[in-house]
Amino acid sequence: MTPAITVPTLILDEHKVRRNISRMVDKVKGLDIAFRPHFKTHQSAAVGEWFREAGVEKITVSSLRMAAYFAKAGWKDITNAFPVNIREMDLINQLAGDINLQLIVENTEAIEALRQQLQHPVHLFIKLNAGNNRTGLPPTNIDEITTIVQRIEEAEKLSFAGFLGHAGQTYQARGKEEIARIHEASLNSLNPVVDHFRADYPDLLFSYGDTPSGSTSNAFPGVDELRPGNFVFYDLTQATIGSCTLEDIAVAMACPVVSKHPERREIVVYGGGVHFSKDRLERNGVTTFGQPVRWTADGWEVIDDGISYVRKLSQEHGVVGVSPALFREITIGDVLGIVPVHSCMTADLMKAYQTMEGTSISMLTYM
Amino acid sequence: MTPAITVPTLILDEHKVRRNISRMVDKVKGLDIAFRPHFKTHQSAAVGEWFREAGVEKITVSSLRMAAYFAKAGWKDITNAFPVNIREMDLINQLAGDINLQLIVENTEAIEALRQQLQHPVHLFIKLNAGNNRTGLPPTNIDEITTIVQRIEEAEKLSFAGFLGHAGQTYQARGKEEIARIHEASLNSLNPVVDHFRADYPDLLFSYGDTPSGSTSNAFPGVDELRPGNFVFYDLTQATIGSCTLEDIAVAMACPVVSKHPERREIVVYGGGVHFSKDRLERNGVTTFGQPVRWTADGWEVIDDGISYVRKLSQEHGVVGVSPALFREITIGDVLGIVPVHSCMTADLMKAYQTMEGTSISMLTYM
Repeated sequence: MTPAITVPTLILDEHKVRRNISRMVDKVKGLDIAFRPHFKTHQSAAVGEWFREAGVEKITVSSLRMAAYFAKAGWKDITNAFPVNIREMDLINQLAGDINLQLIVENTEAIEALRQQLQHPVHLFIKLNAGNNRTGLPPTNIDEITTIVQRIEEAEKLSFAGFLGHAGQTYQARGKEEIARIHEASLNSLNPVVDHFRADYPDLLFSYGDTPSGSTSNAFPGVDELRPGNFVFYDLTQATIGSCTLEDIAVAMACPVVSKHPERREIVVYGGGVHFSKDRLERNGVTTFGQPVRWTADGWEVIDDGISYVRKLSQEHGVVGVSPALFREITIGDVLGIVPVHSCMTADLMKAYQTMEGTSISMLTYM
Repeated sequence: MTPAITVPTLILDEHKVRRNISRMVDKVKGLDIAFRPHFKTHQSAAVGEWFREAGVEKITVSSLRMAAYFAKAGWKDITNAFPVNIREMDLINQLAGDINLQLIVENTEAIEALRQQLQHPVHLFIKLNAGNNRTGLPPTNIDEITTIVQRIEEAEKLSFAGFLGHAGQTYQARGKEEIARIHEASLNSLNPVVDHFRADYPDLLFSYGDTPSGSTSNAFPGVDELRPGNFVFYDLTQATIGSCTLEDIAVAMACPVVSKHPERREIVVYGGGVHFSKDRLERNGVTTFGQPVRWTADGWEVIDDGISYVRKLSQEHGVVGVSPALFREITIGDVLGIVPVHSCMTADLMKAYQTMEGTSISMLTYM
């Protein structure tokens, strides 16, 4: 790594990012499904341009502030895949006046607030619970869903766009077969209610998608639009699930080495919970917060020896257990590369990227 | 809560913060030990002023960038309690020219780099492993420690300040007796080596301190300086350890309620891993990411019914399981207060506070 690295820095391999984007774009095109990638992972207007160059025109975000950031960067068709927060009505109105805005609802209270306060048209998706039990109406609640559709249709500035589901439970899968099983069960649970309403609303869209099924499945019956997000970078979690290989991971933290402890064969790096986040992963029978890499001429190779991994993170410290060979190889003052457990959380904390070529790439900040 | 809350906001109860500060100041004064509180929890120049008003003049930080921030805010005596990162020599030189700077070392490589590149005097503490096995030399390695002391003494711009220990393993304790047991064992393991060097260096300082022992113990034999940090806010972890009561927790997240799920008796709030961090805690037999509060006329009361707690966090969502009474009480669009598991990590993510009176308080940012 370049001597310019002085503090924990999130390195981005532009080649891998563009490859991850084009693979997904080509795949979704082949399935004849609309593509609306989730931008919550990279949160960067510059990375967004790489999607635009690959033909993407519609995007998903996870907050209205993120929508405002990307609207400013020229995106005109944005879905905020988070239940309407009626306390942000001012920002909803501002965005709805500027872009084609899709929001998601799952209760009549939000629709009533929108009905009373909206100044511009908004398209509403109804969130269905795809089985991960986070948000969404149970797909069996036909009566409640019918009521919500009616309330949307009654409101002057609202239109019913369709249904939206996210099978986040695929993150519990290990291996492609298990992803496929969960994916099939999720779609089987949602398609009956979607079909029920298609009779009266032939133009409704069924928007769906998570990175594990988006990366591994070729069967999306009934789905009109796909919204995976993490695939842009992938991470150690996705490699462990089976969504990608370790080689597909497109970001790595560069962390200065500050200490070596031979009695525990541990390296201490400058790089802690405020850089990686505290997301953890069960992998190779241990709990890990990241896995070291070896820098190469044009990138890095993940070290997957079953011994070397980030054992602990505190606020600024990362404690990395390593193999005897790696322990000998690493010197105080080196920069150790580490692929993160969860790239969305790490990127959100780091607030910037540096490419392998040394270019700085900025991200959304709330400052 | 005020209607001004539109997005997740970190609320700070100034009265509680000032009370936590003055309690610790009075206690340390009573013990006749120097006080050098750690500012990594609040990371705020404004909160720093409340310490200054309580008579504090020396501080601890966890990064050089944090040291630079507080130096700019007028702090002239700062210890960076993180092993020297030789890649930040420029910032070390800049700070050492401006303030009284203490750094910590645990290897000869760092000392050699400092010897060659330092332009201004720096005081070095040698980090000892107090038993938490993160950083620090084993206190039994007298020969290695002797070598390091000699190397420090040989370098023109370096001076040997003493030893620094942090018994982070008190965070594993549950109850004051267990804290006391760990605290005593830690000091028993460090005092022999400190005493060994006191013979030749009578002015050396033994700097020590973690919030659990700092909050509950009155016995710090051999300790010259105390460095607790988290006590300024405390959090659900410290209350569970036994360092404080739930009433002492001085920060709470204010999160808009966006969804209610009667079938699971769960509330979904706008407030996820990018706001709270993903730090987790075993409490009341479950894994939790925070605990709800009831707002009162001048603050909040933590709801500790054994049922209501944050069950899951994803990027922007918090899923809060609640009692039947609380479920009935909460309406879509309300602002649910939640005390965080780990206030240091939550504050670091939020990058700002809002007092109960609506005043905004800024923090360190790297932008």
